Amino acid sequence: MSAQTPDRPTTILTEDECWEFLEGQTVGRLATAVGGDPEIFPVNFAVAERQVYLKTRPGTKLVEIAVNSHVAFEADEWGPDVARSVVLKGTAEILDHDADLAAAEATGLRSYLQDGKNVWVRIAPAEVSGRRLSR
Amino acid sequence: MSAQTPDRPTTILTEDECWEFLEGQTVGRLATAVGGDPEIFPVNFAVAERQVYLKTRPGTKLVEIAVNSHVAFEADEWGPDVARSVVLKGTAEILDHDADLAAAEATGLRSYLQDGKNVWVRIAPAEVSGRRLSR
Repeated sequence: MSAQTPDRPTTILTEDECWEFLEGQTVGRLATAVGGDPEIFPVNFAVAERQVYLKTRPGTKLVEIAVNSHVAFEADEWGPDVARSVVLKGTAEILDHDADLAAAEATGLRSYLQDGKNVWVRIAPAEVSGRRLSR
Repeated sequence: MSAQTPDRPTTILTEDECWEFLEGQTVGRLATAVGGDPEIFPVNFAVAERQVYLKTRPGTKLVEIAVNSHVAFEADEWGPDVARSVVLKGTAEILDHDADLAAAEATGLRSYLQDGKNVWVRIAPAEVSGRRLSR
């Protein structure tokens, strides 16, 4: 028998674990693709009812989402012994109905800067996947 | 005169400041776009000569890069008072020449997991931009 322990450094997170992780995070990155080229934006976000909410100013992000609402979203955390990362793919929607805006405000999302960010975006997930790395 | 100080929470980083920031980071995210849809991957990386190096296993990331080498790359840091984020757009190349591989190894890149990652990728930047947020 080998004295080595099995090498299993990577674990796949369950869907529940993915959402639990996302609920504990405040910073993520939104990836968009327009004209065949990717863009990436760091964002503050909040989660409610397994949807991702973020708030932004009118600008590039919103233009990208309006042109192609298929987005990817990622959050990660790197500890000394364990790292976690969750990637979500879905459809981004710019919110304008009162009920949606009320749901967005109810998330209590706090942005790092409150600099005139007044457009709410919600990502409805099509798939979510996550990994835990142990070393 | 107003008693309020000017509200200037966001500063644009110079190109030098962007690279200085990236040189101090070890975790970033690679965004790719294939078939019109974005993907996002957390990665360890290193910088040398104003190019970004990362190491990966054969898999989705490499397939995406092979299909569309136009990528975006992002790193960020969120402190209590100041946050920084740098986004780079450029062309990703899977390295296979000895001189390129030697340059890649010389970066001293440390991956969180050393789990059979044996393919080097280099991103040659077309543009880099960065922001510093103060609150």
